[in-house]
Amino acid sequence: MDTALLIDEVRLTPILIADPPLLNTQGVHQPYTPRLVVEVVTRGGVSGIGETYGDSAYLDLARPLAEAMPGRAVSDVNGLFTLADQVCGDPRSTDERVDAGGLRGVRTVDKLRLSVVSGFEVACLDALGKTLGLPVHALLGGKVRDTVEYSAYLFYRWAAHPGAGERDDWGAALDPAGVVAQARRFAREHGFSSFKLKGGVFEPGQEIAAVEALAEAFPGQPLRLDPNGAWSVETSLYVAERLRGVIEYLEDPASGTGAMAAVSAGTDVPLATNMCVTTLAEVPAAFAGDAVQVVLCDHHYWGGLHRTRELAAICRTFGVGLSMHSNTHLGISLAAMTHVAATVPDLGYACDSHYPWQTEDVITTRHVFRDGRLTVSDAPGLGVELDRERLAALHRRWLDDDGAMRERDDVAAMRVARPWWTAPPVPRW
Amino acid sequence: MDTALLIDEVRLTPILIADPPLLNTQGVHQPYTPRLVVEVVTRGGVSGIGETYGDSAYLDLARPLAEAMPGRAVSDVNGLFTLADQVCGDPRSTDERVDAGGLRGVRTVDKLRLSVVSGFEVACLDALGKTLGLPVHALLGGKVRDTVEYSAYLFYRWAAHPGAGERDDWGAALDPAGVVAQARRFAREHGFSSFKLKGGVFEPGQEIAAVEALAEAFPGQPLRLDPNGAWSVETSLYVAERLRGVIEYLEDPASGTGAMAAVSAGTDVPLATNMCVTTLAEVPAAFAGDAVQVVLCDHHYWGGLHRTRELAAICRTFGVGLSMHSNTHLGISLAAMTHVAATVPDLGYACDSHYPWQTEDVITTRHVFRDGRLTVSDAPGLGVELDRERLAALHRRWLDDDGAMRERDDVAAMRVARPWWTAPPVPRW
Repeated sequence: MDTALLIDEVRLTPILIADPPLLNTQGVHQPYTPRLVVEVVTRGGVSGIGETYGDSAYLDLARPLAEAMPGRAVSDVNGLFTLADQVCGDPRSTDERVDAGGLRGVRTVDKLRLSVVSGFEVACLDALGKTLGLPVHALLGGKVRDTVEYSAYLFYRWAAHPGAGERDDWGAALDPAGVVAQARRFAREHGFSSFKLKGGVFEPGQEIAAVEALAEAFPGQPLRLDPNGAWSVETSLYVAERLRGVIEYLEDPASGTGAMAAVSAGTDVPLATNMCVTTLAEVPAAFAGDAVQVVLCDHHYWGGLHRTRELAAICRTFGVGLSMHSNTHLGISLAAMTHVAATVPDLGYACDSHYPWQTEDVITTRHVFRDGRLTVSDAPGLGVELDRERLAALHRRWLDDDGAMRERDDVAAMRVARPWWTAPPVPRW
Repeated sequence: MDTALLIDEVRLTPILIADPPLLNTQGVHQPYTPRLVVEVVTRGGVSGIGETYGDSAYLDLARPLAEAMPGRAVSDVNGLFTLADQVCGDPRSTDERVDAGGLRGVRTVDKLRLSVVSGFEVACLDALGKTLGLPVHALLGGKVRDTVEYSAYLFYRWAAHPGAGERDDWGAALDPAGVVAQARRFAREHGFSSFKLKGGVFEPGQEIAAVEALAEAFPGQPLRLDPNGAWSVETSLYVAERLRGVIEYLEDPASGTGAMAAVSAGTDVPLATNMCVTTLAEVPAAFAGDAVQVVLCDHHYWGGLHRTRELAAICRTFGVGLSMHSNTHLGISLAAMTHVAATVPDLGYACDSHYPWQTEDVITTRHVFRDGRLTVSDAPGLGVELDRERLAALHRRWLDDDGAMRERDDVAAMRVARPWWTAPPVPRW
């Protein structure tokens, strides 16, 4: 093995990035949200980058993993899981549920570890690709398409955070007209022709009206609604019936595989999930019960790009559709998402991405959507370059923070405006 | 993309290799069996090699695929399937069953095509690895073990072919004592400590006796029996009961997913298959019915090394064990098998290989088993080199053949000794 591929150093840089006041069923996005930038530097002097969640639960797992990396080859990504087991504790012995926000379904240490590994894997693949002169998609067997389609990710939102924070020019969107206006701007600025609305914010009747308004404004174009499991089975079936023929899929209308299966049994509207199926262990019961017809891959959830491709193969085998989920992320992850999406033959839906909401980034040249698509880079590695000045500035923000923003907590953020707010019951409606 | 990775030429060389008179439920191996060696030559002057089945049905698919390869990058292996669909016809429109020997379960054009693609994929990965200076396992995400364990593949056999053909010094093995003697030699010469007997040759009582004799000779060591679906459900259950506690798994005792599920329901002896589950389309029904507890991967069946890794992920997800199947093959495929096996974390069984039976090869340095294991090569590509003189000699044998050996047909081979022989009924016992 070429010693140039051996890892010399791994740098972890937690940062805080600006996030607009986007609403979901838990509450509202904080003014700043934590991310972790992972840099893998090889003996050959090449630096590969990845990003993942930056809350302290993730940092606690990332630090020992970073320390264990030097001396390993960047090509050795299959071994990251065993290494993570060794240095972060065996997931089979530590499957306790940890509280780290309510939008990801049940959280376990294993899930956090997979998210941490994903950041390291992407950084390794970036370094490997840069060393070899190959794009990351080629390291995954090669792209099967030259562009990847993304959907507009619509949010109910406030014009500004109630406390501190950046203010953008999007204004509020709190009713159907506001949602349609937001969608029009997304279509105009980025060319998106597929739309997803984050729901679970208002009572279902209003969200149905918003989707119907979108259908009127964008006739025949794909529309999705995602209340993050906020509805009962009965409410889910009511919404499904109302939006039948209008909606491409309903994402996590109800919470948990059992409830999703009950909804699925009562409607022919496809159900998608990024909550009840987010690890391999959750697949068999969900597929056996026909609880979901579309699984949302997300390399941060599933443990990296190779694992995302494995999930795609599993879905293909069982006739389950594949789409892509996104949480708040920067341009490093968007590059990784685009590379892996380009290699999966049967990605049947436009991918989600929060990227247009993130005006701050740590790469030198921002990604630009054209006709709602990103061109798959053929440059070595991910094809993006770290902007060290920006990274340092965002890290300084993290250092300067008193701890309030270092853990993403949409419930706490909502309390700034509504001191009486608590995490809503499930189901909420 | 580096133009050095672009394919300049693909060479197909059909060959005939000597094969001993090994018996199975269909008949006997021919004196010579066809294989196809695939060479992919890049503009950078690097040659990558792969091998697959060489019967005319495979050659007919390989030729148009070879012609379509120049100008593509050797890193673009995901795209091989679409390309094969385009140049060899869409498998969804041509799923007719083709007769090409009875040991592979139901044969479809799609299955033949996957076998052809596998040879091309391995050749591309070999060329890519050689160009980049990386072993094939690193192109698959890296090895998770340094050695791969193989099992001794025991056969009932004759001392010599009834007609023409090479004669080896193994002698006949037609009863329990002969099987044990063969196993002892395998253990002595290669260090194997796991044993698989190809059954379905004699009535089940004799094969049970052979396994019991093996258990006595090698107490506590893993033993397998594979009658290639020759038994009824009742016979399978009888054998399972007799060999319970002695056998590691029974491989394809009965034919088809339905019969396997019926056997599985009646015994706790694990059932393995390389017949009823050999493509992704066959997975869901078999897993839903708990028809098999172990799937045998084989990159020739599943469409290459990437697809083999995907199968491993599917098995992992559904709690189904993974082992590896082998048909008659040479050292190129053994290298490929070892690379992919090295990258799969949960390969829970010693892999099958016919390799010790193949005294002819097309690589310059034969693989050597130590303690029943092969060391995973860290040399660039597969780590084997084509012996062009040997290849030419074996190709000459193919050219000189009057056609009798160009199609492997164990039934026809048996007729040389027993003119009244026809393919046995299923179930045979």
